[in-house]
Amino acid sequence: MSSKENHPLHRIFHPRSIAVFGASNKPTTMGTYQLLNILSSGYQGKVYPVHPKLSEVQGLKAYPSARELPEAPDLALITIPRDAVLEVFKDLGERGCKRAIVISGGFKEVGEEGREKEQELVKIARSYGIRFVGPNCIGIINPWLPLNTTMYPYKQNPGYIGLASHSGTYVTQVLPWLEKSGIGYARAVSLGNEADLNIVDAIEYYGEDEQVKSIALYIEGIRRPKEFLKVAKRVSRKKPIVALYVGGTRAGARSGVSHTGALSGSDEIYQGVFNQCRIIRAPDVASLYEWAFALATQPPLKGKRIAICTHSGGPATSLADACERAGFEVREFSPKLQKRIRQLIPATGSARNPVDMTFSVNLDALYFQLPELILSSGEVDGLILHGIEGESYYTHFVQASHGRLKIPVEELSGYLRGILKKLAQLPARFSKPIVSSSFMGREDSAVALVQDLGIPCYPSPERAVLAMKALYLRGQSIK
Amino acid sequence: MSSKENHPLHRIFHPRSIAVFGASNKPTTMGTYQLLNILSSGYQGKVYPVHPKLSEVQGLKAYPSARELPEAPDLALITIPRDAVLEVFKDLGERGCKRAIVISGGFKEVGEEGREKEQELVKIARSYGIRFVGPNCIGIINPWLPLNTTMYPYKQNPGYIGLASHSGTYVTQVLPWLEKSGIGYARAVSLGNEADLNIVDAIEYYGEDEQVKSIALYIEGIRRPKEFLKVAKRVSRKKPIVALYVGGTRAGARSGVSHTGALSGSDEIYQGVFNQCRIIRAPDVASLYEWAFALATQPPLKGKRIAICTHSGGPATSLADACERAGFEVREFSPKLQKRIRQLIPATGSARNPVDMTFSVNLDALYFQLPELILSSGEVDGLILHGIEGESYYTHFVQASHGRLKIPVEELSGYLRGILKKLAQLPARFSKPIVSSSFMGREDSAVALVQDLGIPCYPSPERAVLAMKALYLRGQSIK
Repeated sequence: MSSKENHPLHRIFHPRSIAVFGASNKPTTMGTYQLLNILSSGYQGKVYPVHPKLSEVQGLKAYPSARELPEAPDLALITIPRDAVLEVFKDLGERGCKRAIVISGGFKEVGEEGREKEQELVKIARSYGIRFVGPNCIGIINPWLPLNTTMYPYKQNPGYIGLASHSGTYVTQVLPWLEKSGIGYARAVSLGNEADLNIVDAIEYYGEDEQVKSIALYIEGIRRPKEFLKVAKRVSRKKPIVALYVGGTRAGARSGVSHTGALSGSDEIYQGVFNQCRIIRAPDVASLYEWAFALATQPPLKGKRIAICTHSGGPATSLADACERAGFEVREFSPKLQKRIRQLIPATGSARNPVDMTFSVNLDALYFQLPELILSSGEVDGLILHGIEGESYYTHFVQASHGRLKIPVEELSGYLRGILKKLAQLPARFSKPIVSSSFMGREDSAVALVQDLGIPCYPSPERAVLAMKALYLRGQSIK
Repeated sequence: MSSKENHPLHRIFHPRSIAVFGASNKPTTMGTYQLLNILSSGYQGKVYPVHPKLSEVQGLKAYPSARELPEAPDLALITIPRDAVLEVFKDLGERGCKRAIVISGGFKEVGEEGREKEQELVKIARSYGIRFVGPNCIGIINPWLPLNTTMYPYKQNPGYIGLASHSGTYVTQVLPWLEKSGIGYARAVSLGNEADLNIVDAIEYYGEDEQVKSIALYIEGIRRPKEFLKVAKRVSRKKPIVALYVGGTRAGARSGVSHTGALSGSDEIYQGVFNQCRIIRAPDVASLYEWAFALATQPPLKGKRIAICTHSGGPATSLADACERAGFEVREFSPKLQKRIRQLIPATGSARNPVDMTFSVNLDALYFQLPELILSSGEVDGLILHGIEGESYYTHFVQASHGRLKIPVEELSGYLRGILKKLAQLPARFSKPIVSSSFMGREDSAVALVQDLGIPCYPSPERAVLAMKALYLRGQSIK
């Protein structure tokens, strides 16, 4: 077995069978929602509900205890009252189960009594060789298997980000927003109180996991700072890591303690740790995912020279301004390059940088010819493209005109698809990143396509600049 | 007539008849799209296409020239080649038309020759008393009339923001994003080259216009700084103004010149102007609209003490951290208040501030009882609520369970609607602002409802904090 397959998190993300504790036939318990979600997420392994009284749970045969399961399950998912968790751990140990996720709360996040119970739980686990996530967590998601053990039934397309989070919300409640943003997980784990497996284990595992292309961390406090430093330093050599740390203010620290019993520390100390580990620090939760997406899909930005390409004067100017504020250079192109650009844009456009095509329907120029020409020129290190949009505009007009306008919308979509596929190959061809923005979302097929092809497309021009900044920081950190 | 009705922009936003120059029966010209959009936007006034050759345009009787129109139109919308605009202005003047929007480009934004043509156009307009918006602009939107003269057919619900923009994109291309964000215009004008009517006129008009509750400005450069100072100072006494200025960097200034021939100036000088005028400066285009929405709907924040209320530990901690970074205080509540809060939340929750209900289905507590209790306590100046969500979660599960789960989703929605209506009355009752956030969008009926009731709901916790900061700056500026 590879080191990845030996890692304690491997079977938690890839169980061949799951025993579920806490599900019933009532529609009001969390465990029931989790069981339903495992089934509806498309999980193909075996599922064993365990219930002291019921012989059938949600249409599946149920077992009275772990000791009576027909096999040692790869994973136990536990959502029952705190004190019962300890007994279940003993039963699981006796049955030979080695991995668990403990959703139940009431442990160290609630104070001294809970802390003692948590220590007891760890002791039982150690005695049987059980490794577990939680307690007081929300579970894991592996959209590639697929498996979603959480109680959030939202769709998640497989992606490239490995997320480790001290907040279950940032694993689950964000799913509708992530889906609309075209951002997908490779894996996600809600760490909870980290009684056993913790953020260091997650970083270590993601480092070995080839489906994870970038690592995103939501941190309330690091419990094993020395190991964190050692592992994060090693992993970030090959994979980008981005982190949101919220424990560096008094209010953030106080809230973190109530939440997961987190041990936070001063902002300066954490910043020092992040710098040593080449960890890029995100200022807010949206940036955490948006930057991780760019870092997973685009090559690092190796210099400061940015090209801007759009058909809109306002976003051109906003992008130019935001780039310079971010420390980038938006240099005027050479006369030679401007001359070649002018052959592709209308007379009313601007070829200087930003390139502003103004209102033009030359999609091939905007989405491929100009980016190719500019990236091949050697005059820039990366490109920001505003105005990704497919058939939406025309579809609206065909509707608005009550059939008076005849526009071959489907042909247009097909044509555009071909152009965008060529666009998506440019970053690898030139080893230079492209990020984009649009005021349309994934309801527009062009936005959905570029995102799915790995060109980040953000909902406002300035967010594209921020993501480019993350790619720059990555480029600097691995120089 | 009131001063509002005498203002040159009044008939431009409320024309009883519009002559359209540039529309035809071809599906590829901008003028055609504008005409179709006027019709499909629901405009109830008269529309007169003017075309030298066609007797019918898009099903309407067309006229060969302005001189032959059956009446002097309230407004002329002009999208024809530059040199022809000058002739059309003379015809309009002879026919007695006093207001125009000139979409056509090729004027001062393209250099010396264009500059001369623009001066000539102004001269003709003055000789006939024509006041006009543009050239090189994209038109106006008045969703209350309704009227949309632009070529963007996207839906826009009537709202409270008066937008004046040096970018047509920020009037039009943003519409899908605004709609998804629950943000609506009262009026919007794309100013273009500002040969005649300019940003000062727009601020002045919005100041008088009772449907405008806050004013948003996208600025590439101010052409009449003294008048701007005078008018903005006066108007901002009664209505909040928020501005995005992008001409303060070299790259932004260069791009602005190519775009609208803008005269930008140093960031410091503009900041000084904004300070003198109580103008709140937005850092990016999304914030411009998001803050304008909060400023239009919520009372100003009169102090720094913020309460945070949620059912999610991660957002609780993020909000606490972001609040403190923004200069707010997230003080622990008094023992007395905490005791009363604990009666409304589960034992696993936290009552300290942030209030974290944890996973709880007590919607009345989260969305009304806690906000009311906290705002009435006198311990805070404003409240941020994370986790607005209605029936989405249950709808997903009913689908996921293939009918196995029976949940009365419609009853739940009705119940929630009653609670949220009570929530929306709290800011006026206590003169204290509430802003909220959710990872759900308007596809969720609770998010759509709170936004429509005037409680801003942003797509991430930190954006709610930023909007609260804008309300604080407003509160400080009118002390």
